[in-house]
Amino acid sequence: MKHLLVTTTILALSAGFAAAEVTLSGDARMGIINNFGDDDTGFTSRARVKFTLSGETDTGLSFGASFRADNASAASAGNAGEVFISGAFGKLTMGDIDGAAQQAVGNVDGVGLTGLGDLNEAVYLHNLFDEGAFGLNSDPTAAYEYSTGGFTGIISVSNPDNLVGVDIDPTFALGLKYVMGDYTFALGYEDNNDSDSDHVIVGVNATFGAFTVKANYGQATVFGVDVGDQWHLSGTYSADALSVTAFVVNEFDAEAYGLGASYDLGGGAKVVGGYARNDSADTDAFDFGLSFSF
Amino acid sequence: MKHLLVTTTILALSAGFAAAEVTLSGDARMGIINNFGDDDTGFTSRARVKFTLSGETDTGLSFGASFRADNASAASAGNAGEVFISGAFGKLTMGDIDGAAQQAVGNVDGVGLTGLGDLNEAVYLHNLFDEGAFGLNSDPTAAYEYSTGGFTGIISVSNPDNLVGVDIDPTFALGLKYVMGDYTFALGYEDNNDSDSDHVIVGVNATFGAFTVKANYGQATVFGVDVGDQWHLSGTYSADALSVTAFVVNEFDAEAYGLGASYDLGGGAKVVGGYARNDSADTDAFDFGLSFSF
Amino acid sequence: MKHLLVTTTILALSAGFAAAEVTLSGDARMGIINNFGDDDTGFTSRARVKFTLSGETDTGLSFGASFRADNASAASAGNAGEVFISGAFGKLTMGDIDGAAQQAVGNVDGVGLTGLGDLNEAVYLHNLFDEGAFGLNSDPTAAYEYSTGGFTGIISVSNPDNLVGVDIDPTFALGLKYVMGDYTFALGYEDNNDSDSDHVIVGVNATFGAFTVKANYGQATVFGVDVGDQWHLSGTYSADALSVTAFVVNEFDAEAYGLGASYDLGGGAKVVGGYARNDSADTDAFDFGLSFSF
Repeated sequence: MKHLLVTTTILALSAGFAAAEVTLSGDARMGIINNFGDDDTGFTSRARVKFTLSGETDTGLSFGASFRADNASAASAGNAGEVFISGAFGKLTMGDIDGAAQQAVGNVDGVGLTGLGDLNEAVYLHNLFDEGAFGLNSDPTAAYEYSTGGFTGIISVSNPDNLVGVDIDPTFALGLKYVMGDYTFALGYEDNNDSDSDHVIVGVNATFGAFTVKANYGQATVFGVDVGDQWHLSGTYSADALSVTAFVVNEFDAEAYGLGASYDLGGGAKVVGGYARNDSADTDAFDFGLSFSF
Repeated sequence: MKHLLVTTTILALSAGFAAAEVTLSGDARMGIINNFGDDDTGFTSRARVKFTLSGETDTGLSFGASFRADNASAASAGNAGEVFISGAFGKLTMGDIDGAAQQAVGNVDGVGLTGLGDLNEAVYLHNLFDEGAFGLNSDPTAAYEYSTGGFTGIISVSNPDNLVGVDIDPTFALGLKYVMGDYTFALGYEDNNDSDSDHVIVGVNATFGAFTVKANYGQATVFGVDVGDQWHLSGTYSADALSVTAFVVNEFDAEAYGLGASYDLGGGAKVVGGYARNDSADTDAFDFGLSFSF
Repeated sequence: MKHLLVTTTILALSAGFAAAEVTLSGDARMGIINNFGDDDTGFTSRARVKFTLSGETDTGLSFGASFRADNASAASAGNAGEVFISGAFGKLTMGDIDGAAQQAVGNVDGVGLTGLGDLNEAVYLHNLFDEGAFGLNSDPTAAYEYSTGGFTGIISVSNPDNLVGVDIDPTFALGLKYVMGDYTFALGYEDNNDSDSDHVIVGVNATFGAFTVKANYGQATVFGVDVGDQWHLSGTYSADALSVTAFVVNEFDAEAYGLGASYDLGGGAKVVGGYARNDSADTDAFDFGLSFSF
């Protein structure tokens, strides 16, 4: 009887975990940084917690949400985190999400404990128009994603009722991704009709044993002006606990590169360091320290 | 022996859960909204997490607190969330709580995914004087509640030491509620002596099988002026997973009504939609989407 | 077989708890306060939650972080909470931490539900220069601590790359502590070279049965001016659930004292009250209420 009681308790616990729940994860880091233009090398540290909410309807649809504790206020207004429902029909997501082009093509690998300015990241129209670069914020953005076999298609549209800043039409984006073994091919397209802006970008990721290459190439028109093209290229070599990354980018004639490494201490801890140079601005930066995930 | 170990572990876990603890719950929603006066229909989404803190003294008094993550800063200053202790003597609560009249009488049912302006909600003096409507904020408010049989009595008083805005006396409120089977009768009285303001409101909730009716009627004097009366009426019909609500209100001659429905998908998910019209302002609003609880 | 399954589940759960994790704790309080200079006695309440992140590397180094939910935004920028890694080499910490002198010497006991202005706390240069008193904020601060036997040594340095306010050199601090049975002796030294400021402080804590005495004495020079000395003395008597504390301080000729008591209700709840007088300002304060920990 005692054993039966134990089993029952466990089953009840299991049922509790299977039902709607809120779970916690976190990350932290500590180290030193010499940022672009800094005279002195300083300390850098941070700690963050993420809430993950998950549930399932009676018919088996999965739903959930996630946001960080430091973004809790923005998440309560749809300007941070995301909410989703998914099933055989695909996945519908709303919130402070990347545009479909960025979701599909993404970015090449970056370096450093802190990202060092995230120079590896490509320019996406969705971010320019919908997350503040132009003084706007039209989240929540909505996206619909459908996957079958190695193929994934995503469409996104920013909030059509932008109550903040200039009243422009929403930004539409399309992302297509195809995974074939160690190769991933992706295509992204973004369009903001009102402002005569669009962007097309292609990307490829390929893994050759311990070596992974990521590359993308995009062309953009912003406010009717052909601003040229951007390309980003990264290579990451991983051997046991060690991982080394280099990237080089040319973003509308602004050149930059970076080099970094990380060593996995196990249990979620890594030693991480990086160097990045913004050639056009003639500045550079480096950092070094420990990163933790919980 | 192994089984004994398991049992012991479980008991230890159980003991842990019975002692002082912090638990998480959450809610989220995603959908579309056309707000009062909007040209365009836009997206709406949000995700929130609530902390619930609970404990028990050696003599069996329950105590606890609760607040949302997005209100964590305000809760650390008594301006959001609440703290309580309860026992045979009743329940004492402090924080950003409703006045006693609102606690007893409450509001008739509202509609929509987002509440659509919460037009179903009555005006309570406590909110006008103590939560910012008149530029004041005198939380923490304190309330004492005692229940016996179907009867509940509540008294509340806003912070007597209002350091913000105009220095007026606290707002006192009284709430009485009596539950008799499917009927609930409630009476609320609020008084802000300094400003020559008072409010009396009565409410009744009644359930007839699948149908629930809620109604309230109040008369108020604000700053010495008899501002007239307000009444609110709602009817909600629930059948299996479906629930349909209509409300109509007249708030000091401002008329409004709303109509909404929700369909329970199980597991904490609902499809929810609503329409509300502010007759006096000649504007309306609607929303539709999914609401989740975790 | 069923029992084996249960056992396995438990072991998996145990493993989960031993690995990197995020746990929650909290505190709350509710009561009344008459603050320094208040005409009226008002209500005071608050509720807070703390995240504790912990993990362990493959080689057995402990790492972790902690911050409060109401400080989540600041913690994501290194201006609240802390991050650490520790092992046989000692402990390295970064974030919004006390300077080494304060970590070693600390403060004498305070009184009251709310701390009543924390008049028991000594002045530390680290706080003046690095946490806003002079308009600066140079967190994250870094500290290294090493303990052997009853001896603990700590060194700290504020962020050398102060991007906020006046660009002064970081504040260095040293703390030494020796625990010998019921006695603890501590020495702290702080130096801000650029501003010609330094501070030396000694402290002693001693326990005689139910009675604990804490005292410290410090001398400081700020911006080249000898500002004199400060001393703080407290006595706390504990008997069963009751604890009574008195303190008296003279901080650079500003005199103050306080008297308080708390009664432990068990389960994390206490009844707490206190009185404090700022002799130099000729004002006093008192509070009374319940404090909870979760």
